[in-house]
Amino acid sequence: MNIDFSSLGAKYGTPLYIYDFDYIQNRYLELKEAFSGQKNIINYAVKANSNLSVISLLATQGAGADCVSIGEVKRAVMAGVSKYKIIFSGVGKSDDEIREALNLDILLINLESEEEMKRVEAVASQLGKIARISVRVNPNIDAKTHPYISTGLHDNKFGVEIDMAKRMYIYAKKSQFLNPVGIHFHIGSQLTELEPISEACEIVADLTKTLKAIEIDIKFFDVGGGIGVVYQDEVTINVQDYADMIKNATKNLDVTILCEPGRYMVANSGYFLTKVLYEKKSGKKRFVIVDGAMNDLLRPSLYDAYHKIEAVGKTGEDFLADVVGPVCESGDFFGKDISLPKLEHNDLLVVKSAGAYGFSMSSNYNTRGRVAEVAIQGQMDRIIRKRETFEDMIALEKEFLV
Amino acid sequence: MNIDFSSLGAKYGTPLYIYDFDYIQNRYLELKEAFSGQKNIINYAVKANSNLSVISLLATQGAGADCVSIGEVKRAVMAGVSKYKIIFSGVGKSDDEIREALNLDILLINLESEEEMKRVEAVASQLGKIARISVRVNPNIDAKTHPYISTGLHDNKFGVEIDMAKRMYIYAKKSQFLNPVGIHFHIGSQLTELEPISEACEIVADLTKTLKAIEIDIKFFDVGGGIGVVYQDEVTINVQDYADMIKNATKNLDVTILCEPGRYMVANSGYFLTKVLYEKKSGKKRFVIVDGAMNDLLRPSLYDAYHKIEAVGKTGEDFLADVVGPVCESGDFFGKDISLPKLEHNDLLVVKSAGAYGFSMSSNYNTRGRVAEVAIQGQMDRIIRKRETFEDMIALEKEFLV
Repeated sequence: MNIDFSSLGAKYGTPLYIYDFDYIQNRYLELKEAFSGQKNIINYAVKANSNLSVISLLATQGAGADCVSIGEVKRAVMAGVSKYKIIFSGVGKSDDEIREALNLDILLINLESEEEMKRVEAVASQLGKIARISVRVNPNIDAKTHPYISTGLHDNKFGVEIDMAKRMYIYAKKSQFLNPVGIHFHIGSQLTELEPISEACEIVADLTKTLKAIEIDIKFFDVGGGIGVVYQDEVTINVQDYADMIKNATKNLDVTILCEPGRYMVANSGYFLTKVLYEKKSGKKRFVIVDGAMNDLLRPSLYDAYHKIEAVGKTGEDFLADVVGPVCESGDFFGKDISLPKLEHNDLLVVKSAGAYGFSMSSNYNTRGRVAEVAIQGQMDRIIRKRETFEDMIALEKEFLV
Repeated sequence: MNIDFSSLGAKYGTPLYIYDFDYIQNRYLELKEAFSGQKNIINYAVKANSNLSVISLLATQGAGADCVSIGEVKRAVMAGVSKYKIIFSGVGKSDDEIREALNLDILLINLESEEEMKRVEAVASQLGKIARISVRVNPNIDAKTHPYISTGLHDNKFGVEIDMAKRMYIYAKKSQFLNPVGIHFHIGSQLTELEPISEACEIVADLTKTLKAIEIDIKFFDVGGGIGVVYQDEVTINVQDYADMIKNATKNLDVTILCEPGRYMVANSGYFLTKVLYEKKSGKKRFVIVDGAMNDLLRPSLYDAYHKIEAVGKTGEDFLADVVGPVCESGDFFGKDISLPKLEHNDLLVVKSAGAYGFSMSSNYNTRGRVAEVAIQGQMDRIIRKRETFEDMIALEKEFLV
């Protein structure tokens, strides 16, 4: 797709997040197609990009939602996701969140510990409801990704060991307030190898068989998310291979597959557009200082993540530069030693693959208002979130100024 | 000070930021006293904790403000800081920000590059104003702190080399739209040794002498901030030694000292109060899962920063635990291998030294509303920022949902 970044920058200002909605829709349809022949729900992982219009786009296509807070559940409901396609995951749900989720009658609550199961049971009992639950199994497999987003080892906080999972299912089966309908694993994010997922899948399929043998009727087999995307030159997982592996591992189980892609769906739909304030030399270093900053896109700073950066409509000899923002930290950078032509005040740079964990992690650090978000669909562009103003930033504290 | 965390938790809910305003006031008075005998302005570095009521507390005591965005300048003005005590720093100021700062007639704009000087001159010329400026000198000194908050080396994006600074002063002196009134350095944050600051101070004092000799009349000698605080068991800088060193280095210069403490003023005034959701064992690891998360307090995740964590009103044998939040990342932790007694649902933990770079870096990641902020002053407590609701979070995007 050919995006006219100059026009968009002029029309909406910078910094700016731009999402290609056609790309997102195609990614969804591709994954959906890969699972054809098996009952499945694609539960979009809302945390990757929580904009209501992004969720709505996917809901219109029939997607469900994977949510990790009651706020995300509410976003999904508001954006039109069917309640019976919403799952609520996460290691730390408060009683209030559990109560609201049960009252909303979503598909299931995914449990990450025995202690959490007891809280869900207690809250369901108070409400006189039966909570549909799944258990997140931690298969103790190294996902080979950044430690911060690796989640499938026992020294991570996520999920429970197999033996514990069995005990929880047996307990839940007996409880009058719990109905164990699903099983879940998720070993990490931005995975580029199929093998660890396949191993995890086999382990969890085996457990599902064991559970079915003792009449615990698992209907939903939740394979989590984590399919890697190309930021630089990664060779990632082929989704047809991925889907075939899952179909094969579950072929005699009579389950509906739940798949929770987040980054996979949106990362490469997104562009972070930022304006050059000026170039600067310090010693031998060349800095390109732009109007976007770490508060807008935290990934380079937090994960040392790589994003391609390109100059818009600018040619000439490239030489190396650090692309940095105005925030008062040396950690405020988008890229180091990036090849870029000579740039001038008001030139535009585009930071690619910014659709996932971009805006959703942004903050008001340095009292910088969060940027606007724009969708492109067909040949049309439209705003899907307004730029935050100074008044917006102080709205919740102004009245307390004495 | 004895803070009744249980009552505050019950009254305002959790997670919660609590700031001891008496502590902040005392820190200000102590630093002010250390500089007595020399003209000085303490310019509070707003980025550390930007709450309007915190700035107002300091403004009432006579403090100025060090701001790094026009948003911070507006906060300072709104909170009652005198305009002639506000300075505007930062490596990347947009033309709009420069224009607003000039229109507000603040004390000075601190320049971080020759290119920025040209922008300030251009904007001042458009407005027909004379911009009071200072130049940030990068003395190429290793501040011996975390690389992300070290700023005084030539391979950092901050400031300019001495020779460049001289050229800029000479240019500014000749420009009809620039008035060079200040000089500035800041080599990093959370500094625990006086020596690097002292070295930088000598270098910049020498440069000031040179400038005065060629009739560039530097009136403001800005020593930056960066005084370290105790998070764990750091031996930090004695502020009287610090002030004496500066007074000594500048004794024949007839300058007003500008000092920009941020963390020093507020870090240990602050407490992050969070509720235990439950404990969990995974393999040999013990996890205490709390209702606060990395979106509320990013420092442990971003800088691997240490914060003391204590159980409120709970005794018993201590054993090691990781204190983690509900966010779906292994990077979501407050502390690892922390000694804590056995804890139960609804017990409270307090994360200490959370007054600086806590709330100001917080986000809505995982659609978690930002927490409330409370001030304690005398024996009274009062809210200074409301808890963010779901409606607040979607306010800027709801209307675009089609």
